[in-house]
Amino acid sequence: MKHRQHPGGWLTAEYALLPRSTQIRTLRETAGLRGRTQEIRRLIGRSLRAAVDLQKLGERTCIIDCDVLQADGGTRTASITGGYVALILALQPLILAGSLPPDVLKTPVAAISVGMIQGQPILDLCYTEDSQAEVDLNVVMNADGNFIEIQGTAERTPFYRNQLNQMLDLASTACSDLIFKQQQIITSAL
Amino acid sequence: MKHRQHPGGWLTAEYALLPRSTQIRTLRETAGLRGRTQEIRRLIGRSLRAAVDLQKLGERTCIIDCDVLQADGGTRTASITGGYVALILALQPLILAGSLPPDVLKTPVAAISVGMIQGQPILDLCYTEDSQAEVDLNVVMNADGNFIEIQGTAERTPFYRNQLNQMLDLASTACSDLIFKQQQIITSAL
Amino acid sequence: MKHRQHPGGWLTAEYALLPRSTQIRTLRETAGLRGRTQEIRRLIGRSLRAAVDLQKLGERTCIIDCDVLQADGGTRTASITGGYVALILALQPLILAGSLPPDVLKTPVAAISVGMIQGQPILDLCYTEDSQAEVDLNVVMNADGNFIEIQGTAERTPFYRNQLNQMLDLASTACSDLIFKQQQIITSAL
Amino acid sequence: MKHRQHPGGWLTAEYALLPRSTQIRTLRETAGLRGRTQEIRRLIGRSLRAAVDLQKLGERTCIIDCDVLQADGGTRTASITGGYVALILALQPLILAGSLPPDVLKTPVAAISVGMIQGQPILDLCYTEDSQAEVDLNVVMNADGNFIEIQGTAERTPFYRNQLNQMLDLASTACSDLIFKQQQIITSAL
Amino acid sequence: MKHRQHPGGWLTAEYALLPRSTQIRTLRETAGLRGRTQEIRRLIGRSLRAAVDLQKLGERTCIIDCDVLQADGGTRTASITGGYVALILALQPLILAGSLPPDVLKTPVAAISVGMIQGQPILDLCYTEDSQAEVDLNVVMNADGNFIEIQGTAERTPFYRNQLNQMLDLASTACSDLIFKQQQIITSAL
Amino acid sequence: MKHRQHPGGWLTAEYALLPRSTQIRTLRETAGLRGRTQEIRRLIGRSLRAAVDLQKLGERTCIIDCDVLQADGGTRTASITGGYVALILALQPLILAGSLPPDVLKTPVAAISVGMIQGQPILDLCYTEDSQAEVDLNVVMNADGNFIEIQGTAERTPFYRNQLNQMLDLASTACSDLIFKQQQIITSAL
Repeated sequence: MKHRQHPGGWLTAEYALLPRSTQIRTLRETAGLRGRTQEIRRLIGRSLRAAVDLQKLGERTCIIDCDVLQADGGTRTASITGGYVALILALQPLILAGSLPPDVLKTPVAAISVGMIQGQPILDLCYTEDSQAEVDLNVVMNADGNFIEIQGTAERTPFYRNQLNQMLDLASTACSDLIFKQQQIITSAL
Repeated sequence: MKHRQHPGGWLTAEYALLPRSTQIRTLRETAGLRGRTQEIRRLIGRSLRAAVDLQKLGERTCIIDCDVLQADGGTRTASITGGYVALILALQPLILAGSLPPDVLKTPVAAISVGMIQGQPILDLCYTEDSQAEVDLNVVMNADGNFIEIQGTAERTPFYRNQLNQMLDLASTACSDLIFKQQQIITSAL
Repeated sequence: MKHRQHPGGWLTAEYALLPRSTQIRTLRETAGLRGRTQEIRRLIGRSLRAAVDLQKLGERTCIIDCDVLQADGGTRTASITGGYVALILALQPLILAGSLPPDVLKTPVAAISVGMIQGQPILDLCYTEDSQAEVDLNVVMNADGNFIEIQGTAERTPFYRNQLNQMLDLASTACSDLIFKQQQIITSAL
Repeated sequence: MKHRQHPGGWLTAEYALLPRSTQIRTLRETAGLRGRTQEIRRLIGRSLRAAVDLQKLGERTCIIDCDVLQADGGTRTASITGGYVALILALQPLILAGSLPPDVLKTPVAAISVGMIQGQPILDLCYTEDSQAEVDLNVVMNADGNFIEIQGTAERTPFYRNQLNQMLDLASTACSDLIFKQQQIITSAL
Repeated sequence: MKHRQHPGGWLTAEYALLPRSTQIRTLRETAGLRGRTQEIRRLIGRSLRAAVDLQKLGERTCIIDCDVLQADGGTRTASITGGYVALILALQPLILAGSLPPDVLKTPVAAISVGMIQGQPILDLCYTEDSQAEVDLNVVMNADGNFIEIQGTAERTPFYRNQLNQMLDLASTACSDLIFKQQQIITSAL
Repeated sequence: MKHRQHPGGWLTAEYALLPRSTQIRTLRETAGLRGRTQEIRRLIGRSLRAAVDLQKLGERTCIIDCDVLQADGGTRTASITGGYVALILALQPLILAGSLPPDVLKTPVAAISVGMIQGQPILDLCYTEDSQAEVDLNVVMNADGNFIEIQGTAERTPFYRNQLNQMLDLASTACSDLIFKQQQIITSAL
């Protein structure tokens, strides 16, 4: 377990499914968080911290709330991609007001899930596809095409190196598209 | 969130650091588990389930206890590699006694961590190296050389596709060596 | 403390504010519910149970989820009024399918808050008005104009009997209007 | 949810049933408070805060402990009526010593429960009557005959406006009597 | 840790201090029991189980509630001595009704605390004495003069064997007196 | 409940059984400590505090971690005896460095369990013996042969005064031997 000092600010994320966001009602986590929830919170936090210069953020903590109203497929990667937009909308006014330097923002970040169904890599699986997938890969990338985080899990059968490569190719293109769309949304919202 | 039925048995893992296993004393988790602990428990469990045919396990639950007496570097991957040995030592007598079919055991599984320090991929980082690493990659593989799980995190700077490839190459060789050593230990222990 | 048996079914409600539903972010209740939340859950449950014949509901439990996306004013009475609509939309298909008798539904129920500001009774206070109110009254009524629940609290100064009467008059008309609107929404939704 | 500043002091109440105070043993609340307990604590606290000028209380917190040794009927209103006496006995010495100004005390406060059984309003129901009651009304009043809090619940059937009026008439007389008795007890105790 | 099977019934005890039972208000244990409370509960339970033949108790669980209204000195030994009376008052009617055999009751049990102040053994220390005591000894005995439990703690300075003997002598006489008084109370109460 | 001020430092102990330290797997205490665990922690802490001059310890807190890897018999007394060694190994370097005065250490402390099996006192019972024992006595003594703590429990049948004396004689000799061995270990380790 590493002990690091964090000069400057911090960014953390909270994630929760509304009870009726899933087909079968999900119980509220009022007596401690489930392992899955904690894992997703930590992933979103790590991913979005890669988009900010924490030292330049100063003595501030950003909390990105990812409350899922409708869950169908990759909610953790959607939370990262949408959370990035929320982060920019929160920080941009502070940059314009001169309270934060413009370079507090680093390269934009987006995320996508890829699955392998019957040997074919498929992007952003919906609930029905997801439950058939042999492999489940979550990829977080930045606008430079580099990786922030990769999490690949063999759901049924172990996967080959070339399958990993196919899935990463697909994810790269998708993240690049998502980053383009994030910029459009941010531009129209500010 | 997926709802799956598990006909047959189940395998789960518990992970804990003894307070004095770390250089700075770690607090006991007596009021709920930390996110990091839950994440590691889930990873170990998923990885070792890939080594067993749960249906052939019958109405049994295996709990693999990973209590870290001395923590220096990749304790989660060491828990998977060592946990596999414990699993075999627990199931082998049941197989010999005819209570379990031999094919309850699937392909052996091992895990290793790889870090990137100053652009160089390095296996199984110790505590000091780990805190300098730019990338932290945990790889779980089976004896066929396929992936069970890949978790790569950019600790400081995003990483390139070719860096990922270098780290995966290194991990593949290491897992293959570890599986050889696991078999030696199992053979001498049974 | 009363111990009652409930032959037949049960209806309960859950209430939560999304963290960003309030002007100042509200903390998630992941380590036990606050007293205010429990009080509101119990009020919503009691109120909506008045709209159903629990015995005719059979061995069923209805959970009404009231997740507040935007909080401005009387969220507990809005939860009752909206929760009634959700309840009917959930039960009506079962009635049409013959799984429930039509008279499982009793007289419709709605709720409204009334406040007293500078001696004037005002309906459904918004956040700014609410913080100025001298009295805060929540009224739950049915379509027959009778009371299901009354909760009046002197926020700053005790209130007079005739002030109570003025507030109840206002609430009666409002509940009657709300019940009319509930029926319109239910009709268009089914 | 309102955010108020409280210059000066605060008053809060704790309420608990001893396990053997009820006919059927009540479980201790050692792993979090039940909703009913929290609701009652909040009601007692709000009611007794109406009897004190918090600003004149200075930097003090009063905790009124209401531990029910024998529960039969309206324990929450008995807690308010008895809690008022305890509050005065605690503050009076400080007033006499000059540590608190005499006008820290506002108009005296008492509370009573009224039920409706077979259409008849009845004061302060005992356990057996309470379980038959159609309506359960708790009224907190001050010595000026004004309302601090009204909580009326239809236990079985909705209630009419004139039933509410009959119950409020009965409660007014009872609270007036209780305030007279509180003064007698306080006088003899000081 | 021993794993024992308990054929027949069980007896357990609960202990709590009312907040105002102590000179400085004691906090309620609503979020888990303190170590001291658990230790006392276990001691009372063990001690009173020695007075009952659990096998002859049949499929029954006795819970002895020890709620301390006024704490001054040895509340844990007073709980055992008083708890024994409560136990007999609860079981005697069942014995008379023929639901329990008379020999479900074993030899009577009582307990006392002894302290050592300035080298002198003193029985049943009050709060002020207790805080000066050098040794604190709790003794649980039965009517045959044998020991059920001994717990001696050096509060300030270690104690000698002959001091232990003096304290045990004093405790023996006191327990014998207490058992005589228990019988008087039980006789007059039944 | 006593309220004492502790000028200077403090010493506390933590105790836990590893899940596989017992023949039947012990559950981890991740949702609050069991009563037995708290009782043992408190005993170890009290016993080792007798070996240190807390005032001379200064503003320091010592935490003695007693993690049982293999449980067979008296783990609580073994924790005290071993914990004393750990304490000295932790403090001795500070004494040598002049950060602590040599007289921060008081008389050495050790502990042993004694059981009574078929009327015979036996030292340090193993698991099998322990489950047959009629009496279970834990004795904590110092190098002067005085008592720090005595805890004797009749597991099956009450015990006589002369049995207590036999067990104390046996414990005295054993503690004296243990203190000799502690010094040997400390000398060779420093």
